[in-house]
Amino acid sequence: MKAYSDMTKEELAKELEELKKQYHKFQEMDLKLDMSRGKPCREQLDISMGMMDTLNSAADLTCEDGTDCRNYGVLTGIHEAKVLIGDMMENNPDNIIIYGNSSLNVMYDTVSRAMTHGILGNTPWCKLDKVKFLCPVPGYDRHFAITEYFGIEMIPVPMSPEGPDMDMVEELVSSDESIKGIWCVPKYSNPQGYSYSDETVRRFARLKPAAKDFRIFWDNAYGIHHLYDDEQDYLIEILAECKRAGNPDLVYKFASTSKITFPGSGIAALASSPNNLEDIMKQMGNQTIGHDKVNQLRHVRFFKDIHGMTEHMRKHADIIRPKFEAVLSALENNLSGLGVGEWTKPKGGYFISFDALPGCAKDIVKMAKKAGVTMTGAGATWPYGKDPEDKNIRIAPTYPTLDDLKTAAELFTLCVKIVSAEKILSEM
Amino acid sequence: MKAYSDMTKEELAKELEELKKQYHKFQEMDLKLDMSRGKPCREQLDISMGMMDTLNSAADLTCEDGTDCRNYGVLTGIHEAKVLIGDMMENNPDNIIIYGNSSLNVMYDTVSRAMTHGILGNTPWCKLDKVKFLCPVPGYDRHFAITEYFGIEMIPVPMSPEGPDMDMVEELVSSDESIKGIWCVPKYSNPQGYSYSDETVRRFARLKPAAKDFRIFWDNAYGIHHLYDDEQDYLIEILAECKRAGNPDLVYKFASTSKITFPGSGIAALASSPNNLEDIMKQMGNQTIGHDKVNQLRHVRFFKDIHGMTEHMRKHADIIRPKFEAVLSALENNLSGLGVGEWTKPKGGYFISFDALPGCAKDIVKMAKKAGVTMTGAGATWPYGKDPEDKNIRIAPTYPTLDDLKTAAELFTLCVKIVSAEKILSEM
Repeated sequence: MKAYSDMTKEELAKELEELKKQYHKFQEMDLKLDMSRGKPCREQLDISMGMMDTLNSAADLTCEDGTDCRNYGVLTGIHEAKVLIGDMMENNPDNIIIYGNSSLNVMYDTVSRAMTHGILGNTPWCKLDKVKFLCPVPGYDRHFAITEYFGIEMIPVPMSPEGPDMDMVEELVSSDESIKGIWCVPKYSNPQGYSYSDETVRRFARLKPAAKDFRIFWDNAYGIHHLYDDEQDYLIEILAECKRAGNPDLVYKFASTSKITFPGSGIAALASSPNNLEDIMKQMGNQTIGHDKVNQLRHVRFFKDIHGMTEHMRKHADIIRPKFEAVLSALENNLSGLGVGEWTKPKGGYFISFDALPGCAKDIVKMAKKAGVTMTGAGATWPYGKDPEDKNIRIAPTYPTLDDLKTAAELFTLCVKIVSAEKILSEM
Repeated sequence: MKAYSDMTKEELAKELEELKKQYHKFQEMDLKLDMSRGKPCREQLDISMGMMDTLNSAADLTCEDGTDCRNYGVLTGIHEAKVLIGDMMENNPDNIIIYGNSSLNVMYDTVSRAMTHGILGNTPWCKLDKVKFLCPVPGYDRHFAITEYFGIEMIPVPMSPEGPDMDMVEELVSSDESIKGIWCVPKYSNPQGYSYSDETVRRFARLKPAAKDFRIFWDNAYGIHHLYDDEQDYLIEILAECKRAGNPDLVYKFASTSKITFPGSGIAALASSPNNLEDIMKQMGNQTIGHDKVNQLRHVRFFKDIHGMTEHMRKHADIIRPKFEAVLSALENNLSGLGVGEWTKPKGGYFISFDALPGCAKDIVKMAKKAGVTMTGAGATWPYGKDPEDKNIRIAPTYPTLDDLKTAAELFTLCVKIVSAEKILSEM
């Protein structure tokens, strides 16, 4: 296929005419498809239904240390849940707090606590004139929403397949005391599916922040969310690396079972250093008497151990792998060689990142929407929803059925071609 | 029985000697009993075990509007849960947000949000020099812990069987703009078991606060937690009364099923005006994608409707009524006429409030502890843990078995007598 920019005006105009005819056909199909959010599909939820049988009225709801999970108490979670989630997160159970159903909520609360009470005795962020966060871009919109909500200034840092630009991160973090944090999705990143390289993780662990209360917000949302058995990304465990580097308190690490069992009814967790955990527990004791221990027990009894969880993740992979492959096929078949966009080819996680020609992303998303396919809003992957080049689009392949997804991907690539052709034509 | 203060020094000394002999017998029993917290007992938890059967792997986890409860979404809770909890709270489902497992967490978050973002566009409390809360005393220690944690100055307001001293509340609230809230447990109050009178509620609804962002934190924790079928306290519904009074935004009302189903795994809720709810949802959308809808569905399917819940509360009452009566009997039998203390006789809730002679509470609790009976720490019912007269003790009868409770109550009254006798003797 010839690149659009290599076509003559006439060739491209003819191509565009043809594309628009195809688009009209899609419009006539009255589609209503959603590729916007990283939501598991029904089949994925179904594989966890067995969890609903693990606890019934005949079950003993006492956990290993004799605690009745039905009653009040156990602020940081039952031990067997810490062991399970510890294995999942590759952390010692003693370094883990188990929370409610949402790791986003844990991250929000972590920022909120830093605002009102500061970190480890440092000045509460709300008392400072300026608080800044580094935001690897493109990144996760809900991270950026938290920092925006708290009036924290967000500084974009470019991502590469190795992770964030560490030269920039090191320079900024070591020189500016008002930089208090960085959002990271280190494995199968949202939206690219990149996993940070060994060097990147090692440089993170060896940061020398100007601010004593600088923290890495390490959202390891997709730690065990592989698509393939034989080809998996590997990530150095950050807490151990920080300890090794003499920076034990540098990281808050987050994870959950939201995309392992049920997104609305999983369990979330935070792992950190003893100092940070103590700091957090002082606050938590005022916020709650404890999270849902019955649900913690339900998860433990369902998976038994990390091997059960790993087996379970294979079932997820079997369901969503064909969906990723279908989207990647459509991108490859329809766009390859046209010079109208680039995309990532993740080995895990929930997303594919698509970079259109500059200035095209919003129009592509709008056009897909008009034909009934909802994408994540263009710009969402940037702080304040503003992609300066208007080019990044996040593709979430998991939720639609495979058939719907194939249709949606066809339409999406068509929209990319139309908007790109128009753009190139207008500049000829 | 002769009042201790009417005894001669010799009579009282002899009495004290006899009491101490009895105390030594208790010490020899090696007791380990807990009357400290408002925890349901095992039998109470058992009556909710049927809830564990309502959802199994064959169940349809779709709610009435077609939402798959297993997946992400539905920020403010599923509709049928709002209907059930609405009936429980006597509020319109539209005025309700369903949360996670802890109403304490909802209250904490409500204060935290006011600190960082203010209420309905008013200045965030963290930007103010001074923020104060009124605290009816004796009251709930975990309320006071939240306000203390956020550096909010707490002003005690005396309670009577009618509720807080409304003359004082009205004067303070209308004259001091730094007073931003008041903690209320309006029905079967913690620790007295008092229910606010109609006049008290009407005066609350008609407050004219100096601060536009003053809110009543109405923790209706024991709204349907009656001990008797035939003798129940009645409380005017505060949101409706506020609306009637032209003060629709004055109240945040809290409740949960923690003491209805499982304390660790219930569902919590907030009811408020449309303005307040909108204000809250703006924040919540940054904090979470939604709470545990499966657990919401589990509650709805278990109770079906408010009648199911009311029936269920009768079972609770049957279990804990004898416990309250046992403690009240012990108090009556052992202390009546001695002039060493006064106590409340609640018709619901989780506590009995005991007022010892001034200066005696700490010593009584210490003495009970030494013989193996843990009470709520003396002072806990006051802000900063400081009861200025050192006289109030909260008794929590629900958790121990009836036999243990009878023993504990005997020991408690014995400690009251000993400490009181010593006190009176020392002043003779």
